Amino acid sequence: MSSSSDLVSGRVAGPLSSAQPRLDHLGIAVHSLGESIPFYRQLGLQLSGCEEIPHEHVRVAMFQVGESRIELLEPTAADSAVGRFLARRGPGLHHVALRVTGLEALRDRLVKGEVRLVGGKIQKGAGGHRYLFVHPESAGGVLLELVEAK
Amino acid sequence: MSSSSDLVSGRVAGPLSSAQPRLDHLGIAVHSLGESIPFYRQLGLQLSGCEEIPHEHVRVAMFQVGESRIELLEPTAADSAVGRFLARRGPGLHHVALRVTGLEALRDRLVKGEVRLVGGKIQKGAGGHRYLFVHPESAGGVLLELVEAK
Repeated sequence: MSSSSDLVSGRVAGPLSSAQPRLDHLGIAVHSLGESIPFYRQLGLQLSGCEEIPHEHVRVAMFQVGESRIELLEPTAADSAVGRFLARRGPGLHHVALRVTGLEALRDRLVKGEVRLVGGKIQKGAGGHRYLFVHPESAGGVLLELVEAK
Repeated sequence: MSSSSDLVSGRVAGPLSSAQPRLDHLGIAVHSLGESIPFYRQLGLQLSGCEEIPHEHVRVAMFQVGESRIELLEPTAADSAVGRFLARRGPGLHHVALRVTGLEALRDRLVKGEVRLVGGKIQKGAGGHRYLFVHPESAGGVLLELVEAK
């Protein structure tokens, strides 16, 4: 069964080469969602939702941008990953997330290639998705999240 | 006329809402393309080309990532935008580029909204594309390039 909305989401996900990574989202650390959202709206982006992720101590505002998202991250605690980032560097790009297939095999290849991972264990997000972080030291100064495509 | 390759590129570009911005590319400042390229290849990304942009004093390695690109930027001069960024902050995300339509009208809206632009004039790139930079102060700490969709 394939409804028209399936076709649309298939189009966005780019089914022709599902093995190729995609940009899943950019995480941008901000002091205040309320102060930051208007600018992104001015660019013509549509806010697709806001949610709080308690175990990561952030409130997130999500803008769908083509096949990717921009996520504004406001910390709910100073002593959290995003809170410490803000205190140290100020607002800015916090991480880049790539959507990949075969996360386990990819992790094994990276470990073999002496790539430094954060923790090294594949974690499970609130929505059931699986992810892993590559340390900025190994990724050209970028905190890189690898999210498994569903 | 519409060939099958037109359909494919149409699919990737998301023709349903062409007025919506897309992520055009992420610019990542690195000390050395040669040392940085292998990691991005390990992730499964394919290098689509390298080029030198003399007037910006950078060498660029481009990876196509779905409808976006990751561009690694190696400065060819210490006293250049990317060279100074590297000296000040080390390797990392240098800018985010959004592909937009109606760049002139968008610039006027941003100026009216008291958004701080870099320079403020629309510039023309080597490939003939037109672009503008929003100052990080107005964009949540992110140097944001607005590129006009062709």
